[in-house]
Amino acid sequence: MNQAASIAKSIGAVEDPTKMLRNLICSSELSFLMEAHDGLSAAIARQAGFKGLWASGLSISSALGYRDANEASWTEIVDVVERIADASGLPILVDGDSGFGNFNNARLLAMKLLKRGGAGVCLEDKRFPKMNSFVGDRQALADIVEFSGRLKAIKDITGSDLVLVARTEALIAGHGLDEALQRADAYADAGADALLIHSRKSDAGEILAFAKRWQKLPIVIVPTKYYRTPVSAYRDAGISTVIWANHAMRAAVAGMRAVCSRIVAEESIAGVEPEVATLEEVFGLLRYDELISAQDRYLPQHG
Amino acid sequence: MNQAASIAKSIGAVEDPTKMLRNLICSSELSFLMEAHDGLSAAIARQAGFKGLWASGLSISSALGYRDANEASWTEIVDVVERIADASGLPILVDGDSGFGNFNNARLLAMKLLKRGGAGVCLEDKRFPKMNSFVGDRQALADIVEFSGRLKAIKDITGSDLVLVARTEALIAGHGLDEALQRADAYADAGADALLIHSRKSDAGEILAFAKRWQKLPIVIVPTKYYRTPVSAYRDAGISTVIWANHAMRAAVAGMRAVCSRIVAEESIAGVEPEVATLEEVFGLLRYDELISAQDRYLPQHG
Amino acid sequence: MNQAASIAKSIGAVEDPTKMLRNLICSSELSFLMEAHDGLSAAIARQAGFKGLWASGLSISSALGYRDANEASWTEIVDVVERIADASGLPILVDGDSGFGNFNNARLLAMKLLKRGGAGVCLEDKRFPKMNSFVGDRQALADIVEFSGRLKAIKDITGSDLVLVARTEALIAGHGLDEALQRADAYADAGADALLIHSRKSDAGEILAFAKRWQKLPIVIVPTKYYRTPVSAYRDAGISTVIWANHAMRAAVAGMRAVCSRIVAEESIAGVEPEVATLEEVFGLLRYDELISAQDRYLPQHG
Amino acid sequence: MNQAASIAKSIGAVEDPTKMLRNLICSSELSFLMEAHDGLSAAIARQAGFKGLWASGLSISSALGYRDANEASWTEIVDVVERIADASGLPILVDGDSGFGNFNNARLLAMKLLKRGGAGVCLEDKRFPKMNSFVGDRQALADIVEFSGRLKAIKDITGSDLVLVARTEALIAGHGLDEALQRADAYADAGADALLIHSRKSDAGEILAFAKRWQKLPIVIVPTKYYRTPVSAYRDAGISTVIWANHAMRAAVAGMRAVCSRIVAEESIAGVEPEVATLEEVFGLLRYDELISAQDRYLPQHG
Repeated sequence: MNQAASIAKSIGAVEDPTKMLRNLICSSELSFLMEAHDGLSAAIARQAGFKGLWASGLSISSALGYRDANEASWTEIVDVVERIADASGLPILVDGDSGFGNFNNARLLAMKLLKRGGAGVCLEDKRFPKMNSFVGDRQALADIVEFSGRLKAIKDITGSDLVLVARTEALIAGHGLDEALQRADAYADAGADALLIHSRKSDAGEILAFAKRWQKLPIVIVPTKYYRTPVSAYRDAGISTVIWANHAMRAAVAGMRAVCSRIVAEESIAGVEPEVATLEEVFGLLRYDELISAQDRYLPQHG
Repeated sequence: MNQAASIAKSIGAVEDPTKMLRNLICSSELSFLMEAHDGLSAAIARQAGFKGLWASGLSISSALGYRDANEASWTEIVDVVERIADASGLPILVDGDSGFGNFNNARLLAMKLLKRGGAGVCLEDKRFPKMNSFVGDRQALADIVEFSGRLKAIKDITGSDLVLVARTEALIAGHGLDEALQRADAYADAGADALLIHSRKSDAGEILAFAKRWQKLPIVIVPTKYYRTPVSAYRDAGISTVIWANHAMRAAVAGMRAVCSRIVAEESIAGVEPEVATLEEVFGLLRYDELISAQDRYLPQHG
Repeated sequence: MNQAASIAKSIGAVEDPTKMLRNLICSSELSFLMEAHDGLSAAIARQAGFKGLWASGLSISSALGYRDANEASWTEIVDVVERIADASGLPILVDGDSGFGNFNNARLLAMKLLKRGGAGVCLEDKRFPKMNSFVGDRQALADIVEFSGRLKAIKDITGSDLVLVARTEALIAGHGLDEALQRADAYADAGADALLIHSRKSDAGEILAFAKRWQKLPIVIVPTKYYRTPVSAYRDAGISTVIWANHAMRAAVAGMRAVCSRIVAEESIAGVEPEVATLEEVFGLLRYDELISAQDRYLPQHG
Repeated sequence: MNQAASIAKSIGAVEDPTKMLRNLICSSELSFLMEAHDGLSAAIARQAGFKGLWASGLSISSALGYRDANEASWTEIVDVVERIADASGLPILVDGDSGFGNFNNARLLAMKLLKRGGAGVCLEDKRFPKMNSFVGDRQALADIVEFSGRLKAIKDITGSDLVLVARTEALIAGHGLDEALQRADAYADAGADALLIHSRKSDAGEILAFAKRWQKLPIVIVPTKYYRTPVSAYRDAGISTVIWANHAMRAAVAGMRAVCSRIVAEESIAGVEPEVATLEEVFGLLRYDELISAQDRYLPQHG
């Protein structure tokens, strides 16, 4: 048993996260990735039954108190991905933003993610620093050739060991379907394993139009803004993977905001006690039972 | 304006967090500290109106995916405290566990917390590694003299620049009121600014009995288990500060668990959309507006 | 005594590092900054008598095993600066490269350096990622207006609490003296406290020519390539500060390479024993005596 | 090709570092491990021809500016080990001190080292926090049963994927040969792959006496204090591995101290220029040529 396998086994993890992520993304069945932004959210997503995670740049930045504009450093993101991997044992597709610089920064990120527990990385065709796709109108795209160089550099250094997802922001930047298709072609040629087509419209129209015209690679989507469309539409359209991209973080915000407000208003935690998770639930999520039984095994009896 | 003040001003922070924490803990009025475990929870607590935060070891460990048994390293804790400080600008009392080793580890932690934005540190009279006070029955106490040395070492190196709270686990370890009082006396002599008396009973009886017999220093309590007691009882007893010790984390768990389960069951985010925070709320919490206006100020207009 | 002062005192540090760095750079006397890249090199430079340090991007990157092309993340650099500050207590001018992105990344870096022990930051007018100034011919300069925005953003947020040095690479990029002068003017207008003019020629000609024509701000130089020019020439030219920019790192490389080779050849450490520092010297540099005496003060006597 | 292999190949690393370290330690031939404490020292040791490295607690602590008394956190050590692994591609035996706490901290460290590039970990039978073995007389040993629990916990979780070296400080603590032998037996039973017997005497007498009476496992030694003994004596005694434990760091100190002093005295770097490594040597060590050629491959030609 090699090192990766040994660690994987010790945390009840899948044996080959990259292979499993590739299966999720490349199979003909529609797959779902749930956002996680720290160890706790990852453990919860696993317990809920998700088979793969999305390490969201927006959510991780938010948890750290940063804005989603490459304020968090690439190594801070990597550190969080490691916590997510350790806590979940699940395959993780990591939001690599625009790669944190040029091809060299991008491949450095990819190699490090591979080592720290990432199963795939998603790179978007924007410049550095990026701004969150839902904020403002300065969403300038990267040059196609330059961005393709970032993808190639990652592919050359990680081979098949990391799933490489290319994400185009052409639609969000207002360039239309033809530009999106042209970019998708170039990114496929550069070695991407899948294509994430992003939109911030409130309906899935442009996404479905894209899927109709482009089948070179599996298609990944992020229906944050067009959440009303039923997944049956994605199944019909042959979409490969749906990312629920920031809902754990937004659920945490809603939960914490409500509880904070109520504690302030009531000067008491008696009222919120039934609303918050019990300590026992937290201890269960993080496997305190394993630690207790290990104490019996490894500590002297008189200890 | 000195450096600390400059930074403080830039994030809208209080000018002297240590002085403000000291006021909260030492004033005759009952004060409340809300738990935070990352930048996001800190920003939410601030917005809800809390005047001070508790950087909880349990909650920070949980967010990182660790168990509350000193699995997280002391520098990992310090890094999180810095995120909490940067995101909130509020005075923070940091859960320093047992000090991460001996007097030297404890004072190293204290100096570093001071530099990274902590306003106070709370040290508990257990050994290293500790186990969460609500888990198991191996809650062995530290030797009084040795623990007092840890407190003295912190006091000697940080002086009045850091609020030092000594926490005794005598009641939780089953040693009774007399032991708790003896330890409280020793810790006051060692230089503590306040005394945290902890209990895991479901009523406040032993806490109130302690407060009746000991008034040397302000008393801090953590009513996680005896949550039903109204705060009026603490006001009557002359308690100084109440810590709501893990409720933001537990609210986040409850929120994330519910949303994850529902998304799995419904294969859709349409249903949970009204339950989670909007992206606009997240952007507001983290002051994206400041960044947008700064872009206008500092980026070339054609940018 | 405020927090910064308290920490400073505890490590025998200067009380106000920014003020001291400003004095070094702005006084009429020629000053010297010695490169440091980790805690150990910082302690050695202090012991040798240097009054200020240069946290070199090249040297820090090299120590970490990275190339000087923004492979190290901005937070990794900040972490090293903190080690340098803690180990030396000296004022540190930090090589901030091109600011790790746009104005927002630059000001985030500056604020964090201020908190972690930096006294000044030096920003160069290149894009992100940069390449070391002595490597290759792709040394493209940043747009003047855009770079001035980075400087302004830092100045607005740190005020007088951080010394801001603007570095122009105009000469290295082959743009000639006029371009250098134009850029120097713009950076002075943007709020820089001093101007670093860089050259990779083997003589100081272009540097001295620049100094003759520009006196708006104190001038800082880095004579790595034109090392033969005696400092009297810089005094005569009214240069403010000379940075010995990478010589501790290069001394360490030479020392380690020689000792490694000899140990391999001799299969013994007997021969190199007189060449390497004694353990006692290392213990002295890092003040083990303080720890030993603290043990007597804070540990129980039977301990 | 699995993930670990992919990364290894990309940096020209050995394919299975643990297997290679095991071969070094378990073969009948005498092997040598060279100390490294950062990326740069690791690259130098590799270039000098060493086949394996010792990530020394003393040297890493010193480089960080900490004292060798568990001031550096366990995650700070792990981060440095990762830099050493990335920069060298060599098998690394990591100085795990006493394991940073109890069995749980020790196994957490071991799992994380495995993930970050360590090939083996060495655990010494002291308590936490430790003090450097050459400093002071408070070298209290850990309880045999408790320490064996730490070893077992590591073995159970890492299996054969990490080489486990047990180090006894019995001789240094003044307990004599019988105690050392008894402890060695217990640690072999607990699952250690090799035994490090440490001494701070200036001759190898007690080490050779131990080796004569104990052959259960390969024996590792650290002749820092008894450096005069020729290695032929170790070959004759059947010693497995010799660690040159801190000589890169001490060479760096000597080199930096000499250069700093001379620069201060001469107010010039002209004199030290022939003594320090050239920039070209530094660029060669860190493979800048690879980056330059990659720029040609991945950047647009007009870039």
